[in-house]
Amino acid sequence: MNGSEMSIRCESPRPERLPYHSEHMSPARVDCLQYSNWSESIFREMRAGEVDAVHVTIAYHESFREMVLRVEEWNRWFERFPELIFLGRSAADIRRAQTEGRTAIFFGFQNPSPIEDDIGLIEIVHQLGVRFMQLSYNNQSLLATGCYEADDPGLTRFGVQAVEEMNRVGLVVDMSHSADRSTLEAIAASSRPIAITHANPHWWHPALRNKSDEVLRALTDAGGMLGFSLYPHHLAGGSDCTLESFCSMVAEAADRYGSEHLGLGSDLCQSQPDSVVEWMRNGRWTKAMDYGEGSASAPGFPAQPSWFGSNLDFGNVEKGLAAVGFTSDEVEGLMGENWLRFFDDSFGPA
Amino acid sequence: MNGSEMSIRCESPRPERLPYHSEHMSPARVDCLQYSNWSESIFREMRAGEVDAVHVTIAYHESFREMVLRVEEWNRWFERFPELIFLGRSAADIRRAQTEGRTAIFFGFQNPSPIEDDIGLIEIVHQLGVRFMQLSYNNQSLLATGCYEADDPGLTRFGVQAVEEMNRVGLVVDMSHSADRSTLEAIAASSRPIAITHANPHWWHPALRNKSDEVLRALTDAGGMLGFSLYPHHLAGGSDCTLESFCSMVAEAADRYGSEHLGLGSDLCQSQPDSVVEWMRNGRWTKAMDYGEGSASAPGFPAQPSWFGSNLDFGNVEKGLAAVGFTSDEVEGLMGENWLRFFDDSFGPA
Repeated sequence: MNGSEMSIRCESPRPERLPYHSEHMSPARVDCLQYSNWSESIFREMRAGEVDAVHVTIAYHESFREMVLRVEEWNRWFERFPELIFLGRSAADIRRAQTEGRTAIFFGFQNPSPIEDDIGLIEIVHQLGVRFMQLSYNNQSLLATGCYEADDPGLTRFGVQAVEEMNRVGLVVDMSHSADRSTLEAIAASSRPIAITHANPHWWHPALRNKSDEVLRALTDAGGMLGFSLYPHHLAGGSDCTLESFCSMVAEAADRYGSEHLGLGSDLCQSQPDSVVEWMRNGRWTKAMDYGEGSASAPGFPAQPSWFGSNLDFGNVEKGLAAVGFTSDEVEGLMGENWLRFFDDSFGPA
Repeated sequence: MNGSEMSIRCESPRPERLPYHSEHMSPARVDCLQYSNWSESIFREMRAGEVDAVHVTIAYHESFREMVLRVEEWNRWFERFPELIFLGRSAADIRRAQTEGRTAIFFGFQNPSPIEDDIGLIEIVHQLGVRFMQLSYNNQSLLATGCYEADDPGLTRFGVQAVEEMNRVGLVVDMSHSADRSTLEAIAASSRPIAITHANPHWWHPALRNKSDEVLRALTDAGGMLGFSLYPHHLAGGSDCTLESFCSMVAEAADRYGSEHLGLGSDLCQSQPDSVVEWMRNGRWTKAMDYGEGSASAPGFPAQPSWFGSNLDFGNVEKGLAAVGFTSDEVEGLMGENWLRFFDDSFGPA
């Protein structure tokens, strides 16, 4: 937990590098995964909570054409609420959001279903503003294996090609829901750092979706980023997880992997009906009911911890991180500056 | 044929207005319609012919998904030939093309088929780089009537909504293949000037596709642009049309409508097999053979005039325009500066 990486960053000769925030600008606050039931109310909470950028999921199982309908919905929200939100395309849009008092919305897929079987769609979706794509979501995809499959044969032939094309155009590989071998192969295959936008360490809470120490070391050794999830199934103690437990876990992760590779990806699914979590888990691939991380007795969305239920609550996390001993620079990095730096490196052409 | 409009333009207080070319920069050369059988050879001819910008057709009858495949093809060409071509999105990209010695490619549809029945796709296709859309192509569309229909009931309910949305996002209404009433209604409905990118005056050559004096006056009185076609079926004398006849027609049109509203839209279909003109005319809408502007005895692409067969030949047109008495400023306007000014006004948000 020291600032050496940040010092290196400030000395970088790259002219296009965004400046580290100065005393004239607040540090960026970035949440690298939400899928809420979007509304004016939630967008106003983003502003009230001083959230400068949010990576939002726009596809779980959608085809290309269905995903475009989701972009159309967002376009209407951008048109209706220009004082609150706008489409983010680059890290500079986070600084713009700070200056203008708005929230930059970055699109992502939790499944490669929108690119169908067509590598050309990778550049197309990037042109539409998509900046993250998971190579798989729980199940086997055309690209990689999901974390719920019994066996993981690693990246597919299409998967290898897709990673190369994603690297070229600046679409970040996200392995949050992928199985370990596929994840390790994606880290190795990718010429640019990748992300696990929303998961926690398996050593803290051994959920299937949380990530092994081996995966997290490989991810961060290659310059990649981990976003800590605040979804109860990913938390030690579930809905009763304490802020202190969560922040102590972040401190341990910082000791293991370096705090500069860490941020938040809350996985906040605010105000969603349970039909949405059923869609996430079942899509159109099964006629039975798959409960995913839930169960027949608890099939719906779990209750959020008391200290994190909306975009208004990032201040609680910030205070909690300071309370477990992070320096103010480290807290700023964890709350968004680390993601900003990663966005800056990741979203342009290779 | 005087420069009053250009003087007004130079005095415009709009800070974002692109500067008129100076003696340090050549005037822009812009062709506002081509649909050639694209290849490295043709892209090299664009450069050799000093063509700075070309509006290319990417859809005749394609669905949204099929049109995306055409964008994907262009993306591959942009990737393979970055020293020759790039995607143009704004008028500034024409100046960039001049500076970098490349050609900016602007996308357009000759039919609204790619937006299907979905007004949200107008913003989506604009995000993908599309800058022109015809409201109809020969036949009735969901938006307007084509010039080959027996009756023209004018803009449809969807058509009125689509024009408003096109105005909002900066997608230019193009009525090159539309019937008169629909065209006049589109001019009236549109809050921004529209275009007829590729057609000639009916008073010069009474082809069905050429435009009445009434339409051309309404178009240009509203600030719109006409691009003169060099497709033989639109030329007096067809393939035997002389350069002098063509340029004298341009001079007459300039006297009637003002040269500042005029440019080129050659409709060049270089190296295309006749199967392509069959697709243009027949799409999937008929099992019979529609010959369009051709005939059973001459079903294919007609031969180009000797003085205009490729992107190498714009210099002939430029000389021909000077020879019929246009001033050098007017020639520069006709060869591209008028389109550049129109692009500058048209492609951004309203």
